[in-house]
Amino acid sequence: MKLGVVILAAGLGKRMRSSLPKVLHPLAGKPLLAHVLDAANQLGAARRVVVFGHGGEQVQAALSGHDCLWVEQARQQGTGHAVLQAMPAMSGMDRVLVLYGDVPLITPETLRRLLAASADTRLGLLTAELPDPTGYGRILRDARGRVTRIVEEKDATPAERGIREINTGFLVADRAGLDDWLTRIGNNNVQGEYYLTDITALAAQDDVQIASAQPGTLAEVIGVNDRVQLAELERSYQRAATERLMRAGVTLADPARFDLRGILHAETDVSLDINVIVEGEVWLAAGVRVGPNCLLKDCMIGSGTEIFANCVIEGAEVGANARIGPFARLRPEAKLAANTHVGNFVEIKKATLGQGSKVNHLTYLGDAEVGAGVNIGAGTITCNYDGVNKSLTRIGDGAFIGSNTALVAPVTVGERATIGAGSVITRDTPADQLTLARGRQTSIPAWQRPRKKTD
Amino acid sequence: MKLGVVILAAGLGKRMRSSLPKVLHPLAGKPLLAHVLDAANQLGAARRVVVFGHGGEQVQAALSGHDCLWVEQARQQGTGHAVLQAMPAMSGMDRVLVLYGDVPLITPETLRRLLAASADTRLGLLTAELPDPTGYGRILRDARGRVTRIVEEKDATPAERGIREINTGFLVADRAGLDDWLTRIGNNNVQGEYYLTDITALAAQDDVQIASAQPGTLAEVIGVNDRVQLAELERSYQRAATERLMRAGVTLADPARFDLRGILHAETDVSLDINVIVEGEVWLAAGVRVGPNCLLKDCMIGSGTEIFANCVIEGAEVGANARIGPFARLRPEAKLAANTHVGNFVEIKKATLGQGSKVNHLTYLGDAEVGAGVNIGAGTITCNYDGVNKSLTRIGDGAFIGSNTALVAPVTVGERATIGAGSVITRDTPADQLTLARGRQTSIPAWQRPRKKTD
Amino acid sequence: MKLGVVILAAGLGKRMRSSLPKVLHPLAGKPLLAHVLDAANQLGAARRVVVFGHGGEQVQAALSGHDCLWVEQARQQGTGHAVLQAMPAMSGMDRVLVLYGDVPLITPETLRRLLAASADTRLGLLTAELPDPTGYGRILRDARGRVTRIVEEKDATPAERGIREINTGFLVADRAGLDDWLTRIGNNNVQGEYYLTDITALAAQDDVQIASAQPGTLAEVIGVNDRVQLAELERSYQRAATERLMRAGVTLADPARFDLRGILHAETDVSLDINVIVEGEVWLAAGVRVGPNCLLKDCMIGSGTEIFANCVIEGAEVGANARIGPFARLRPEAKLAANTHVGNFVEIKKATLGQGSKVNHLTYLGDAEVGAGVNIGAGTITCNYDGVNKSLTRIGDGAFIGSNTALVAPVTVGERATIGAGSVITRDTPADQLTLARGRQTSIPAWQRPRKKTD
Repeated sequence: MKLGVVILAAGLGKRMRSSLPKVLHPLAGKPLLAHVLDAANQLGAARRVVVFGHGGEQVQAALSGHDCLWVEQARQQGTGHAVLQAMPAMSGMDRVLVLYGDVPLITPETLRRLLAASADTRLGLLTAELPDPTGYGRILRDARGRVTRIVEEKDATPAERGIREINTGFLVADRAGLDDWLTRIGNNNVQGEYYLTDITALAAQDDVQIASAQPGTLAEVIGVNDRVQLAELERSYQRAATERLMRAGVTLADPARFDLRGILHAETDVSLDINVIVEGEVWLAAGVRVGPNCLLKDCMIGSGTEIFANCVIEGAEVGANARIGPFARLRPEAKLAANTHVGNFVEIKKATLGQGSKVNHLTYLGDAEVGAGVNIGAGTITCNYDGVNKSLTRIGDGAFIGSNTALVAPVTVGERATIGAGSVITRDTPADQLTLARGRQTSIPAWQRPRKKTD
Repeated sequence: MKLGVVILAAGLGKRMRSSLPKVLHPLAGKPLLAHVLDAANQLGAARRVVVFGHGGEQVQAALSGHDCLWVEQARQQGTGHAVLQAMPAMSGMDRVLVLYGDVPLITPETLRRLLAASADTRLGLLTAELPDPTGYGRILRDARGRVTRIVEEKDATPAERGIREINTGFLVADRAGLDDWLTRIGNNNVQGEYYLTDITALAAQDDVQIASAQPGTLAEVIGVNDRVQLAELERSYQRAATERLMRAGVTLADPARFDLRGILHAETDVSLDINVIVEGEVWLAAGVRVGPNCLLKDCMIGSGTEIFANCVIEGAEVGANARIGPFARLRPEAKLAANTHVGNFVEIKKATLGQGSKVNHLTYLGDAEVGAGVNIGAGTITCNYDGVNKSLTRIGDGAFIGSNTALVAPVTVGERATIGAGSVITRDTPADQLTLARGRQTSIPAWQRPRKKTD
Repeated sequence: MKLGVVILAAGLGKRMRSSLPKVLHPLAGKPLLAHVLDAANQLGAARRVVVFGHGGEQVQAALSGHDCLWVEQARQQGTGHAVLQAMPAMSGMDRVLVLYGDVPLITPETLRRLLAASADTRLGLLTAELPDPTGYGRILRDARGRVTRIVEEKDATPAERGIREINTGFLVADRAGLDDWLTRIGNNNVQGEYYLTDITALAAQDDVQIASAQPGTLAEVIGVNDRVQLAELERSYQRAATERLMRAGVTLADPARFDLRGILHAETDVSLDINVIVEGEVWLAAGVRVGPNCLLKDCMIGSGTEIFANCVIEGAEVGANARIGPFARLRPEAKLAANTHVGNFVEIKKATLGQGSKVNHLTYLGDAEVGAGVNIGAGTITCNYDGVNKSLTRIGDGAFIGSNTALVAPVTVGERATIGAGSVITRDTPADQLTLARGRQTSIPAWQRPRKKTD
């Protein structure tokens, strides 16, 4: 049984009031459509087809990493018409599953349930019970509980309006049947559109038994039409993500103040304080503690390491039992060994820091190789850029860099060397020696303080 | 029809436990009373009178920018007595609308509806349906649905207590009628106070038909008596503000973590991450992205500019396609041209930065004019203050300022000049040349590392 | 009447998925068990006994500051068995109250109500009405409303399952009676455990009248079994804490974004913006305003002082009318006098700052005594550490430290001395004089800018 998936992603999304196609708006840091494609990928589908319309090039470019076919729906003539455009690309498939690019939280579990429920018949619908079904097509069932048809709100009798089971739009159908039904639906309605929903009545006419399944949560079948709904689904996503993390053993100080926008690999007893944001792919080893208002992106943090308040860490690796922050910024290719200390107002970029080394205050380390057991004083700057080229600063094991030192790269500080405070180091410094590069101190007795200018 | 507005603002606010008069406590960054005055201003009222009591001078001083008259209620003898104090100031008005300085979320829309509903009669009440009306005066209506009187909780029969429509206190009345009724109400009650509510019974005795209208939301008629209620109304305000912004096309990562304390002008596709605070008046051009935990106050940000995490921007202008932060602080009169980059731990105050210039790390720029295409190295300080006077630093187009440089103002760096790292520049530097001001590097072979003192 | 308290803390807490014993997981910054011990302490109990099991040493070490006895339950054979282990340690007590180390929000007020309700009888139960009682033992009462027994979910008739009053597990019993009942309960159940609950039936057999009381809120009787529940109780705790603070007169911009992890002493008109965290013991005097995203730990802030956004303050004292931040870090033993200003990217550790002194930008002050009226320029560093020893920097009243100055401790700057910008001060500087220590400025006319390397 070959499964093909059609994802409808041609909607205009006018209520988003955006120049970005609706299906590219991010949820949890990823385009809506990418969520749906990822769900489809997990089903083992043989083929995935996205039907695009507005902003098609932009959509294809943004999703270029995904393995799918693209079919254009040049004119928006309804969902039935959209699926019809995709049918040539479905040749050879046995069954076709229809998903929606703006309904991002559908889960593979729910879809697998729908596929299983529909295994022995030619049409299966995903339906849902809503507390308030107003506006949705209702599911009519016969005395034996079998789906007979979908009635739209406007056509429903008062009794039918009382039905709370609604059509979500998600469906799976026998490919040949779908082909046939799609060519038979009409557009005799106010909008002049071809509605996918109408295949249900045709299937019923054909005496097809219509299967059904229900989603795990209602959030799975809610579409995004404006940014209010987008924000609501973002929070639904985050609530599910935080619950999953907590059950797996992560402590969150406040689940309502945590944002996962990627993948978090957390070992045991990781603790995240309020307003932590995780982006990209982040590894936190056992016992890592992250303070409030920290942003972690594409980084690996070693076991027992503590990250204090207000840090921004991106593309960095930190070893075990390190202490980072508060107010530290680690940028891509910062690699900190175990037991390192990085303090406040320190920026580290493309630099290695050896075991036990300390950079505690007001420092910029860029393009540097720093050995083990090094102490870098407050206000140290690696002058890595001369306006056109970046150069390397090397600091040997056990060196002591005095405060307010400028290291003009390329330059090497020898092992166990000491640099006097306030020095500008432009040449390599010998190991074990004290190197100074600063002015001589003089006082001027006759000095008069500046006076207030009266202009 | 001339409309006069009376705002009652004399209450003590004891449960606030504050030395600040209740009506001055801020909601969304603005005193409660200012919210009510702003609503009144939008009605096109001919006159606005605030009845003040406790802390009157403080209240008047805080609201001095508002166009209104001030009337003192020297002794707190009830709401009827308070309105009576304002009546002399209402002479010449046709109708009088009564508002409350501690009921801040009333909207002009609701008040216009009340005014319209009352257009043909001499008294109109704003009423509301509460899920739990306990403690409020209930609205009694006759068989034809017309208001007959208000019954207080304590005087109500069990059946009357079942009524969920309550008196909000807001009302509009014919001025002459109000004058008459106010002189007729008594203070024969436990508190010995004159209640404004009592005019309803007098109007009914006079066979006045009593009109009514309802607020758009219940939050509009809720008063602030303690800081718990203040916080609740703050959140009501913010929920409404975020919904309005999102429907207008602003993306909010989490509407529950955004605070608007002023006015936000946002063009299309502005995106605000968690915990952004907007104060004063802020303009964000198309495509501006603001990172988490940023505070924006009285600033203009150009299109396509990205502001990273943890920035504080106040009184600044930033051009298009700039990159600011993380951890940047822009202070008043910072003016950054297009394509500028300002990085971490950088403070800019009263300084212009020309197109494409970069200030990426650990820098203080104050009282400076920086040209285009300038690169300012890490740890650069403009020494703009000699203890009494502030002086200007000028840096020409295309200059390169080496790291850890101190620029002692007044001083000018020529165009395309290069300043060597670690320099202290006290005199103007020539264009195109390299200028250095730093010590010579020497090493001391016989150096002994300090030893641990044992005291 | 001597009261003994038994706290059951031997549970494994498998669903926490943690290497930390469950009762040591923190809530509001304090181990769960410490909350229960603190509640017990407020009852004036004559003796407190904790029954421990898994991780006993770790638990005892973490709670070593508490006055209690420790009894091991070597094998987990049920709550009845656990209490039985504690009974020898209860000798001499008249009554025994049973609490739970993983039910942290129980209040002394509720326990006092239970004790009072049970004053005249031998057994008292804390019961609660749950909206959904599924899974709990139901309280059966006779026609006169007296408790007759507890029926477990599995043994309950459909009618009994409809009862919403459940057994919380908290109870107080006559010590002798408890001794007797505990020896009589059996372990004839699927788990083979001895259930404390079973003493109720024995007491009823003995014709003991069973008293009951109810908790103030349901959160008081909810146990922590996994991190989802831990987070829920954390929020319950915070909601109660913020309401208490607001009623006492503290303004919170958003009660849902405030975290109290210790004790806050706030005088009148303290105002806390979003995402403030209070840890340890913090004193805020009248009118203190704290900006967004600030972390305050073990500190005292003087009246009228304003702390701007994104500050981290720990172990520091700040006088009245000071201005701190944004982006300031005050560390232990920072002592700032009144009217001081500390600005952005400034770190102060173990240093005093005299009245009216200013440290506004990019500075590290460590191990320093700074007088009054001192102005410390941007980029100033106290070089307090030579790699092994810390030394002191003294700055006299009225001194002016130019920007980018390094003060190499031990060193003293005289009163009213001026230090030229960019100096490295290694020797004491005379009062009133200007001291400089920097290079001479020279320009190199033939200078060629570096070219792009092509490697």
